Amino acid sequence: MPLPEKALIDRIRKGISSSRLHYLVRGIGDDCAVLRIPRNHDTLLTTDFTLEEVHFRRAWHAPEIVGRRCLTRGLSDIAAMGGNPLAIFLSLAIPKRLPQSWVDRFMKGFLDLAREFRVPLAGGDTAQSPAGVLADVIVLGSVPRGRAILRSTARAGDGIYVTGELGGAAAALEVLRKSPRKVAARDYPRHFHPVPRIAIGRFLREKKLASSMIDLSDGLSTDLAHICDESRVGARIDENLIPRATVGRPVCQVSPEAALHGGEDYELLFTAEKSKRVPRRILGVRITPIGEITRGRAMTIVKDGVRSKLEPQGWEHFKSDL
Amino acid sequence: MPLPEKALIDRIRKGISSSRLHYLVRGIGDDCAVLRIPRNHDTLLTTDFTLEEVHFRRAWHAPEIVGRRCLTRGLSDIAAMGGNPLAIFLSLAIPKRLPQSWVDRFMKGFLDLAREFRVPLAGGDTAQSPAGVLADVIVLGSVPRGRAILRSTARAGDGIYVTGELGGAAAALEVLRKSPRKVAARDYPRHFHPVPRIAIGRFLREKKLASSMIDLSDGLSTDLAHICDESRVGARIDENLIPRATVGRPVCQVSPEAALHGGEDYELLFTAEKSKRVPRRILGVRITPIGEITRGRAMTIVKDGVRSKLEPQGWEHFKSDL
Repeated sequence: MPLPEKALIDRIRKGISSSRLHYLVRGIGDDCAVLRIPRNHDTLLTTDFTLEEVHFRRAWHAPEIVGRRCLTRGLSDIAAMGGNPLAIFLSLAIPKRLPQSWVDRFMKGFLDLAREFRVPLAGGDTAQSPAGVLADVIVLGSVPRGRAILRSTARAGDGIYVTGELGGAAAALEVLRKSPRKVAARDYPRHFHPVPRIAIGRFLREKKLASSMIDLSDGLSTDLAHICDESRVGARIDENLIPRATVGRPVCQVSPEAALHGGEDYELLFTAEKSKRVPRRILGVRITPIGEITRGRAMTIVKDGVRSKLEPQGWEHFKSDL
Repeated sequence: MPLPEKALIDRIRKGISSSRLHYLVRGIGDDCAVLRIPRNHDTLLTTDFTLEEVHFRRAWHAPEIVGRRCLTRGLSDIAAMGGNPLAIFLSLAIPKRLPQSWVDRFMKGFLDLAREFRVPLAGGDTAQSPAGVLADVIVLGSVPRGRAILRSTARAGDGIYVTGELGGAAAALEVLRKSPRKVAARDYPRHFHPVPRIAIGRFLREKKLASSMIDLSDGLSTDLAHICDESRVGARIDENLIPRATVGRPVCQVSPEAALHGGEDYELLFTAEKSKRVPRRILGVRITPIGEITRGRAMTIVKDGVRSKLEPQGWEHFKSDL
C-alpha cells in the first residue's frame, strides 16, 4: 500500500483511536495488514465502490452521511452472511480541489460508524482522483467455520422474511430529485442514517433460523432474484404483506413500488424452513413473512388475490438521471 | 457486493477457470467471499488503487499491461511480508464509452498473472466511472502465524539488500514521456512485464534471513525511508553498489538517479542481521548488499568516498506532468 497522499493518510491515522485488538497484529503502516482470524472461523471479505454522481451527490449529501453510507454497504454484506466484522480498509481517491474539511467530515461519518461496531480501520490506499470522490470500502469479517449463511441454500417450501420496513431510502431519493433543499435528514433515517443489521444476522445464524440470506441493497425484487438464481428456485410473495416504511413530514407511507424495487435500505432478506419458529421481532426490529420459496424458477407476486410475474426492477442508483 | 454492471461481471466470471481450491468456500456470487485460511496462519490484506492518468495512460499502455501491472502491485505487497497470495478481489469502474475489447484485454493481462501464481479472483465490485478507468485491487494472503516480515523490525548493524536491478521501470516512463511511439515493451520488461517476487519473499521468510522487508514500489530512497521510519533507525548506503537495470535498444544502464529514486520496480528491499549468510542469488535472481542500518534516524549515501544526506525523492507517478 503506497501512500501517495501522506498528509491525508496522516489525518486518517490521527482519527483512529489506536485500538489494541488482539486479532489485529499489524494495521496501517506496512505493506499489508496482518490479522489473526479466530480459530475455527472462516474469513469473509466484501468490497464496495462508492462513486460521486453514481452513489451520492455532494449537493445532496453531507460528507458525514457519505462516509457513513459507504461503510454501511460493506458492514451490511457481512451481516448478510451472519458474520462479525473484524477490520475495514478504505481506498479513497479525492480530486485536487476538494476542501480538507470535506475529507475530515467524511472520515468522521465513516469512523463514527466503525466505532459503533468496534471495527478498526486497518489499511487502505489514497490517490488523487481525476474526477470526483471515489471510495472503495473493504470489510473483512469472520464466521464460525462452515456457518456462513449463503444465497444459494434456499429450498422450496421455505418462508421468505424481511427485517424492518422497506422503501425508505428510495423515497428519500425521489424527494431529493424534486426538491433537494426541502429534505430533512431526520425524516428519512434509512437513507441518511442507515444501520447495518449485524446483530440480527448473527442472531439468525446462532439460532440456525435462516436457510439463506442476502442484504437489501439493490431492492427487494432484484435481491430476491439473486437468491432464486443462486438457489435455483422460484418465489411467490404477497405485495400486501411487504412492510412499507413511513417517511417525510407530515409522515406518510412509501409507495408499494418503492418498497418492492427501491434499493439501499440495508435490511435483511432471508428464508427459513417451515418448521422454524421465526420471532415477530428480533432485537427490537420487526420481522415480516412476505411469501414462500417455490419449485421452478419463476418469481410471482400476488396483490388482492391476483397473481402476476415479478420482474427484478431494482436499484440502479442515479442511472435514470445521468 | 451489488452487481450494477451484470454484463461485465458475467464476462469476468467467464474468464475465470472454475478453480476448486479447498480454501475458497465461496467466491463470486454472494454478499461476501468465504475463505478458509490455513490453520496457524495469519491473514494478510493489501489494497491498491490503479487510476487512469495517475498510474497509467491508455495511449501508453496496452490494456493487458495495465491489467498485469495493477495486480502486480498487490502481489508484490504480499511478497514483501513473505506471504502466500490466496485470493484476489477486483473493484473496477469503467467509463460508459470504453470499448468492451479494452476490458477483455485488461482482464486477460490481469487473469494471466493471477494464473501464473495460481490465485483465484474471488470477488469485487463493478461500477460506471465518471472519468477514466479506476481499479482497486485487493489481495488476501496468508503467512505462518507470527512470521510476517514487517517494516518495523530492522536493527542497527543489519545489512541492507535489494533483489534484481533497479530503475528499469522509471527509465521506461522517461522514454514514454519523450517519444511514446518509440518504446518497445520487450526492451523495458520491468515496466511492461513486472514480476512480483513472491517466491523470493517466501524463501527469505522460510530461511529466516530477513529482519525487515518492503517492496520497491515508491523508489529505493522513499521505501528505505519507510523502513527507517517504522523501525526508528537510520541507514547508510553506497551509491556505487546499487544494481542498475539495463534497458532500451541499444542496451544501456539506467542513471543512478533512476535506480535511487525511480519507483514501480517491484523488487524487494530487505535487511538481514550481520550473522546471516545471505546468498548472492536466490531462485536465479541477483541479491545485492547496498549498505547498513545505523543508529540515529538519518539516511546517508556514500559516492566515491563522499558522504551526503539521502532524502526520500521517490515516485509520485505522473505528478510532474499533470
